[in-house]
Amino acid sequence: MWLNHMELLEGVEILIVDLDGVVWVGGRVIEANVKALSRLQERLQIYYATNNSTRSRVDYASKLRSLGLEASEERVITSGRAAALWLKRFTDARNVYVIGEEGLKWELEVEGYNIVDRGLEAGAVVVGLDRRLTYGKLVEALRAILGGAYFIGTNPDHILPEEEHVIPGAGAIIAALETASGRKPDVIVGKPNPWMVTSTLGDVDYGRVVVVGDRVDTDVELALRIGAKSILTLTGVTRSLDGEAYRRLKEAGVVVVKDLEELLPTA
Amino acid sequence: MWLNHMELLEGVEILIVDLDGVVWVGGRVIEANVKALSRLQERLQIYYATNNSTRSRVDYASKLRSLGLEASEERVITSGRAAALWLKRFTDARNVYVIGEEGLKWELEVEGYNIVDRGLEAGAVVVGLDRRLTYGKLVEALRAILGGAYFIGTNPDHILPEEEHVIPGAGAIIAALETASGRKPDVIVGKPNPWMVTSTLGDVDYGRVVVVGDRVDTDVELALRIGAKSILTLTGVTRSLDGEAYRRLKEAGVVVVKDLEELLPTA
Repeated sequence: MWLNHMELLEGVEILIVDLDGVVWVGGRVIEANVKALSRLQERLQIYYATNNSTRSRVDYASKLRSLGLEASEERVITSGRAAALWLKRFTDARNVYVIGEEGLKWELEVEGYNIVDRGLEAGAVVVGLDRRLTYGKLVEALRAILGGAYFIGTNPDHILPEEEHVIPGAGAIIAALETASGRKPDVIVGKPNPWMVTSTLGDVDYGRVVVVGDRVDTDVELALRIGAKSILTLTGVTRSLDGEAYRRLKEAGVVVVKDLEELLPTA
Repeated sequence: MWLNHMELLEGVEILIVDLDGVVWVGGRVIEANVKALSRLQERLQIYYATNNSTRSRVDYASKLRSLGLEASEERVITSGRAAALWLKRFTDARNVYVIGEEGLKWELEVEGYNIVDRGLEAGAVVVGLDRRLTYGKLVEALRAILGGAYFIGTNPDHILPEEEHVIPGAGAIIAALETASGRKPDVIVGKPNPWMVTSTLGDVDYGRVVVVGDRVDTDVELALRIGAKSILTLTGVTRSLDGEAYRRLKEAGVVVVKDLEELLPTA
């Protein structure tokens, strides 16, 4: 029914693999995918790219290594990292008001940004998932945005899957500030924004890249935008597809797998 | 330039007067408007209608009386009151998850609703301005909405004016939940929804009603929808209008005043 999966990986040099919904869901590791990745890493360069900004690259690399996956800090891309690189490349802001968690703050600080407590002191506002969001943080961020600060969203995800249910994503918090301020973010750096990948990988041949993820609107869309191939694994947000959705993905060249073990040669 | 103001009030029996931006802004009383209202109440029935759900009708009535204005609880309409009446009229929900402040909870409890702490127990979610909003409250509300509960917004206001700046309004919180859930609210009961007025005033002759407010998108729009006249006072969110905006409002029959003292006969 689909492309021959081994054929899909012919000529491929780089896999860009999503984390939530691919390597784990909430606290549960997706064993089949980890097993497949530990095989695939023997012949491919694997980067891990997550729209989740709550942890730093260092945290994720360490977690991935604990699962037996090769992952240095340089092989992990978070939307927090992409936000720091965007600020550095496109703005002269130095003071940043952050709605987000420790990982996001770390990524900004490591690039030399000052995290400020008051919106009015900020040249930029970076908004990511913050499970300690309060009304007071929205007030400060709104003041900064209305005061003319850059308005950067880490990622557009409306929700984040947990084991039992879903929780509001960065996209929901961004929507609140967009509504209050009447201003759209200057940029949302996470997937499907190509910046998420190009800011770290630079000028590689994206025809030799495959994006692996559980979401059509972020992972598959990113692949389409950078001219890469893509694999949708039904282990996260997308658990099943109706016939029409399958047909459209197939037409777009997307390979859909139950899990990544389908990519391995059968013994 | 405008309609003769005294002529405007000929044949009028009821004024529906906004609170934030008309009677006060943040903690500051707008003296000119209070003075005018204390004169106008001698010959007109005045109702006070606020999209602000944070306090109850009892609180507002008491505050208005302390300014010398006649206001019983029956003459005050809050979006919290309108939400309770909407639930009663159109649903069989009994358990309500609330994002909102004490005034909203009071209005719901006084109509017999149980305020629950867990989204999954709720037959309805009511979302208003909550200056103690937390991420945890968004999580519970999202679970309720995704579980099929009614989703009611108190009011669409994107911001709320305070003395020095603006703060995010109920509309911003509603936007976060709308984005996360992928569901629009079943209703937003506050102005400009006619329900805000008709649920309390019932079947009066709206040709004899004037809506007084500081916002075009809520107050003036409400007047247009119920077939009432309207007065825009430049004491709140709208502080000035460009020529084009003036022209459009004039064409729509809206009277624009610096403050409500312009409505009084000159001595």
